[in-house]
Amino acid sequence: MARLVLKFGGTSVGDISRIQNVARHVKREVDAGHHVAVVVSAMAGKTNELVGWCREASPIHDAREYDAIVASGEQVTAGLLAIALQEMGINARSWQGWQIPIRTDGAHGAARIQEIDAGEIVRRFEAEGQVAVVAGFQGIAPDNRIATLGRGGSDTSAVAIAAAISADRCDIYTDVDGVYTTDPRIEPKARRMAKISFEEMLEMASLGAKVLQVRSVELAMVHKVRTFVRSSFVDPDAPGMGDFDNPPGTLICDEDEIVEQQVVTGIAYSRDEAQISLRRVEDRPGVAAAIFGPLADAGVNVDMIVQNISEQGDATDMTFTVPAGDLQKAITLLEKAKAEMRYDALQSESGLTKVSVIGIGMRSHTGVAATAFKALAARSINIKAITTSEIKISILIDGDYTELAVRALHGVYGLDKA
Amino acid sequence: MARLVLKFGGTSVGDISRIQNVARHVKREVDAGHHVAVVVSAMAGKTNELVGWCREASPIHDAREYDAIVASGEQVTAGLLAIALQEMGINARSWQGWQIPIRTDGAHGAARIQEIDAGEIVRRFEAEGQVAVVAGFQGIAPDNRIATLGRGGSDTSAVAIAAAISADRCDIYTDVDGVYTTDPRIEPKARRMAKISFEEMLEMASLGAKVLQVRSVELAMVHKVRTFVRSSFVDPDAPGMGDFDNPPGTLICDEDEIVEQQVVTGIAYSRDEAQISLRRVEDRPGVAAAIFGPLADAGVNVDMIVQNISEQGDATDMTFTVPAGDLQKAITLLEKAKAEMRYDALQSESGLTKVSVIGIGMRSHTGVAATAFKALAARSINIKAITTSEIKISILIDGDYTELAVRALHGVYGLDKA
Repeated sequence: MARLVLKFGGTSVGDISRIQNVARHVKREVDAGHHVAVVVSAMAGKTNELVGWCREASPIHDAREYDAIVASGEQVTAGLLAIALQEMGINARSWQGWQIPIRTDGAHGAARIQEIDAGEIVRRFEAEGQVAVVAGFQGIAPDNRIATLGRGGSDTSAVAIAAAISADRCDIYTDVDGVYTTDPRIEPKARRMAKISFEEMLEMASLGAKVLQVRSVELAMVHKVRTFVRSSFVDPDAPGMGDFDNPPGTLICDEDEIVEQQVVTGIAYSRDEAQISLRRVEDRPGVAAAIFGPLADAGVNVDMIVQNISEQGDATDMTFTVPAGDLQKAITLLEKAKAEMRYDALQSESGLTKVSVIGIGMRSHTGVAATAFKALAARSINIKAITTSEIKISILIDGDYTELAVRALHGVYGLDKA
Repeated sequence: MARLVLKFGGTSVGDISRIQNVARHVKREVDAGHHVAVVVSAMAGKTNELVGWCREASPIHDAREYDAIVASGEQVTAGLLAIALQEMGINARSWQGWQIPIRTDGAHGAARIQEIDAGEIVRRFEAEGQVAVVAGFQGIAPDNRIATLGRGGSDTSAVAIAAAISADRCDIYTDVDGVYTTDPRIEPKARRMAKISFEEMLEMASLGAKVLQVRSVELAMVHKVRTFVRSSFVDPDAPGMGDFDNPPGTLICDEDEIVEQQVVTGIAYSRDEAQISLRRVEDRPGVAAAIFGPLADAGVNVDMIVQNISEQGDATDMTFTVPAGDLQKAITLLEKAKAEMRYDALQSESGLTKVSVIGIGMRSHTGVAATAFKALAARSINIKAITTSEIKISILIDGDYTELAVRALHGVYGLDKA
């Protein structure tokens, strides 16, 4: 007997028959004797409809009202799933954020969970085996009003509930059946990983693998919540689905749990990057702050930053990337502040892709970067910028070469082979 | 400066442009210096959609889950109206039932309001002139879960809030512009009443004038909440709309406020009635209970009851009406219990209409009933049953004569004249 959290996203609960399918997944775990909390998103399309109404009522609207409106989507799904479970003879009830309560900070529209009192949920597990169906994406702020966690927040709700009830596992049911070594639409030889460490998943998630919200992975890492990515679109009673130790999907866990660590575990990529280079920036303390402070204030998300000493030695070249959509805003800002920043020239380029090689094993292995560079060079792919961290190498290339580069890197580290 | 409650139904908040129109009605009152609480229903069609989903998930569903699901409709409208008001520069916030709180009993799906703590709403009136936008139709039950008041409950919410904040008036905005002496679709000469007493309105509402929920009128009567019926579909800034003492519409108030009391104030009717007669029922104590107890248990709503001594004097004839939709159920029940009830024969007829003459003034005037019987006789309309109360006379007739009877009665009491 274990304690499980099951989370289902918007497409998994898109209509009543899908909600009934979700109920069958829950029933399978209940029948196996587990204590189950389910976290649900709004029915697909509902959140967008509600957000659209808020915008129509006023382009700039009170985040507290937005929260009260938008949170209703999850409230409806939670109630409907509870009804569907009861219809199958399962003891279940819905919980809204304010009822548990899930306490958040006061940042309406993008709140962070601060505390969950899961005592009553656990008491009902023990006393009557009741399934808790929790409305995702929301909690209650210090002002006693509903607060939402920001888009995709239901993943975060699920992990936080899992931490609060000390769950053995948090199963994230989604429209893919796990985390792959790279995007299977680009590289058909991509393989589903059985396990991936929190750190690696964090890099995969933030680099463009859209399986899980970055915040939820961070939270899972901090609280060591074993998180499992699996598909909701398979028959709930298909062989192996109820296998507690080895169900189909990908486990995101502490690296200690991964016995045979690969050097490289995955290749991620992120399209629509743009590069800005400031030439011959005066080389003095505070210059980086002078450049990136205003960009941050304007909400421009600066990613890779590369600083080189220029030939003459008295000035520096500063190169960095921003999302292509933010390029024009960034250029306008930088040109306005040119006198203050004291650079010679600004160059920019869009239509770029960042390709990243990820693996905890590279901490103890040398030559990982060199292998990547060689593989790209062999295909005449020009490298525009490089950044590295302990467990990843990111390389900026021309967007036209995205697929070629992903396939080359996937092959060169042996990820094609089972 | 007054304290007002404004209530808007589903069609009045059917989309964002209508919600913005509602905001203009609110703004007019705020600009006039009044303190305003607004009670809103769900957008037209939303409640039916949510109820439909509940039924699809399970034909018999947990009323507590139903409540959590269905109450979300009003939650959304309240938030959207608050945003629309803020957009017009008005200080406003939404309130859900559990936030105020509006405490109800535990009868989920058809709860009754027990207590409203309106202290914070009033404090904000005084301190900052903030408009309270309240989600109608809901409160919080003793189990800390949302409870709804039953269909049409937003009228009841509005009157209860008005009582709790000691409002000077509760304005019910609807798709008609007031209460008429009879249905204008049947009698074009029907006139809008300026005032009607609670008691009369109660008879009008329960007899088929669909302007206001009966429960809300009862509540208004008990707490002496001056309730005003008016249209939301006129230009909020049209002449007279902001006239505090004499706006266009009908005031439902204590009879003391109505100086010139008419003998008869209105003619109501209710179609689709059916009549059941039990012939030669044994005339002994407890016979009525033996007949009507089982009908009540089966949820059959018995209305007019007429008991006559039969010719022989040792038995009685019992005649009563039920809604036509319940007729078959009632007959089945009565036939099954025939031996026990000891009647000779059961006769029934459907397709009937109950026409009612209503007026507080008839308490002190004689001959009101005789006038009605004469008017109907002059048009050869056969009377099938009669019941009377202090302030109304109800007459059961063949449904084919409905329009003729309503017009005849409307004319004979002088209601055609201004």
